[in-house]
Amino acid sequence: MQFEVLHQSTRSRARVGRIHTPHGVIDTPGFVAVGTNGTLKALDSATVSQIGLQLMFCNTYHLMLQPGREVVREAGGLHKFMARDMPIITDSGGFQVFSLAYGGVADELKSKGTKKTDGSVLKINEDGVTFRSYRDGRKVLLTPETSVQAQKDFGADIIIPFDELPPYHIDSESLQESFDRTHRWEKRSLETHLKDPRGQAMYGVLHGGLDPSLRKKSAQILTENGFDGYAIGGSLGKTKPEMVEMLTTLMPHLDTERPNHLLGIGDLESLRQCIPLGIDTFDSAYPTKAARHGMILTKKGPYKLSSTRNRFTFERLEEGCACPTCNQYTLSYVHHLYKAKELTALTLASIHNLYFMVNYMKEQREKISLNLV
Amino acid sequence: MQFEVLHQSTRSRARVGRIHTPHGVIDTPGFVAVGTNGTLKALDSATVSQIGLQLMFCNTYHLMLQPGREVVREAGGLHKFMARDMPIITDSGGFQVFSLAYGGVADELKSKGTKKTDGSVLKINEDGVTFRSYRDGRKVLLTPETSVQAQKDFGADIIIPFDELPPYHIDSESLQESFDRTHRWEKRSLETHLKDPRGQAMYGVLHGGLDPSLRKKSAQILTENGFDGYAIGGSLGKTKPEMVEMLTTLMPHLDTERPNHLLGIGDLESLRQCIPLGIDTFDSAYPTKAARHGMILTKKGPYKLSSTRNRFTFERLEEGCACPTCNQYTLSYVHHLYKAKELTALTLASIHNLYFMVNYMKEQREKISLNLV
Repeated sequence: MQFEVLHQSTRSRARVGRIHTPHGVIDTPGFVAVGTNGTLKALDSATVSQIGLQLMFCNTYHLMLQPGREVVREAGGLHKFMARDMPIITDSGGFQVFSLAYGGVADELKSKGTKKTDGSVLKINEDGVTFRSYRDGRKVLLTPETSVQAQKDFGADIIIPFDELPPYHIDSESLQESFDRTHRWEKRSLETHLKDPRGQAMYGVLHGGLDPSLRKKSAQILTENGFDGYAIGGSLGKTKPEMVEMLTTLMPHLDTERPNHLLGIGDLESLRQCIPLGIDTFDSAYPTKAARHGMILTKKGPYKLSSTRNRFTFERLEEGCACPTCNQYTLSYVHHLYKAKELTALTLASIHNLYFMVNYMKEQREKISLNLV
Repeated sequence: MQFEVLHQSTRSRARVGRIHTPHGVIDTPGFVAVGTNGTLKALDSATVSQIGLQLMFCNTYHLMLQPGREVVREAGGLHKFMARDMPIITDSGGFQVFSLAYGGVADELKSKGTKKTDGSVLKINEDGVTFRSYRDGRKVLLTPETSVQAQKDFGADIIIPFDELPPYHIDSESLQESFDRTHRWEKRSLETHLKDPRGQAMYGVLHGGLDPSLRKKSAQILTENGFDGYAIGGSLGKTKPEMVEMLTTLMPHLDTERPNHLLGIGDLESLRQCIPLGIDTFDSAYPTKAARHGMILTKKGPYKLSSTRNRFTFERLEEGCACPTCNQYTLSYVHHLYKAKELTALTLASIHNLYFMVNYMKEQREKISLNLV
């Protein structure tokens, strides 16, 4: 993997860059769509490529359980399995496994939920985590080594070391313990990776919870370890302002020679606030999830597909949009399909929303090039 | 509309024909896919055209209630609304309206269900049927005139007169009454149609229930009325053998100069048995419905997508198949998507099954041309 910064904004830390991977280029800042099970929901790989999505995020935890490492390995890796010829990033599975222990991850990160243990995580120790598969009940051991080996079988262009997701409610002593262990795990992951690189890049995951000094220290450790890039993980706060404050503090301490990625955050407001902080890539299921819930993204803000005022709108879903949906169908028609509960509506809306995000990032890159961001 | 018989088999009543419509040719025998709400489920119009489906069936009853006549009229008709440039056939809405009175239609036709009235049909008289919309509770009057006017707004290439669906359990006196009324309604429909033909063709619906002499009489009446073709409707029996027996009796009495259509029947076994009887087109939701239930159609018979033996099958869904799904993805991948409950699996399976039907009919036409059917 190679990374080049094409332009550094004079107005902010925002920058335009280009990541070169074995499956092609990722322009940054870039939106990364989440296809947990090896597909974007309601879309197929050919359509996703047509839309021009340069990087797709797949989840190791889910793919390990279904279809399983062996199937993807026998297929010749994820790219061949999914028939995708553009870059893919996989995570380590750690995020999902620890979410089993804490209940919902999103709730946990934002401290909204009450901690509940559903018993699926059987053991956590220095070696790794043993959990029970939600699919067939078998025991699965996830360690730095097994996670990286699975990601070797998957063959994504960018992979992630196995890390620990500390709970939001954690005392400083426990956070320090988790911090130390997660960095030991990441180092073991990197060592496993470097024994057999296969042209893959590995991004270290930046931890330290809500403690700015630990966050800075994490940045330092990961840089010294020699990761190819940095993924910002763990809880960054309960609210968007808290997240922005943390990133504002943190980003000046992060190595700018290598690309960075903000894990699991990619709504438009976060993009608007985090691109000027120097974030290169963002992953989120937001545009496709919004589509399935009948929300259409536009430059003027989202609107409800089900709204009665769309009934007679024989125009594109968004004025001037050149996505495959808008090029072929009217808002009136897609509104009707949605009202009639047709699956086709979810596909057509997902196409539009994904295209919107890809195009939004393209415009952001142009703005940065002109020092407007 | 023009119809030409290209070849009459010397072995059976099977024939190869070609129907010319304002939106292009329909080769017969042809499979007609059902897109009730103005789309094939899980597919979009562009994909359906790519697959080569020549005739698509849409339901007037559903489209009248959602999105409504006005919307489709303002859109410039169904073709423009759906962005489909190949032929469309719409029914009259009668079938669905009477099904409200009897409970499930399929059950009623095969005498499986008990008669239940859900109160949605408010009045049936010589004028037509008044029912309550399941969508918004408003009263809707469906008559020969309003049905045809709706079908004028929709602008399908082939339209159907308003008819009465008699219940399966009916005494001969009531059947005769229904028979007489349905033919009066069909005549009124034709008259309404002929006042403003707009290049549309109208197929008369052949009735007479399980009484062969009434069926023959219906054929005679419709021919005299001068319909452009014939749609065989109503109950043809509880079982496939009963249906085949009735059609074997009936078909020699049906005008062969014009095309005919078997309403709502299009499973492979029925096609195999009815093509030799001289049926030209068949409509059915079978291939797309089967796909959504994880059944993959092949020349060797259907198989279950979910079957574990598909896990490592890195080949087409069917050997030699050239459908967009088989050209791009493996059975292993589509199996995985189905197991992971991804909507994408339903789309990819629907593409294959629809392509299979289109191709199956193409092969039947070739066989008839060689007098092998």
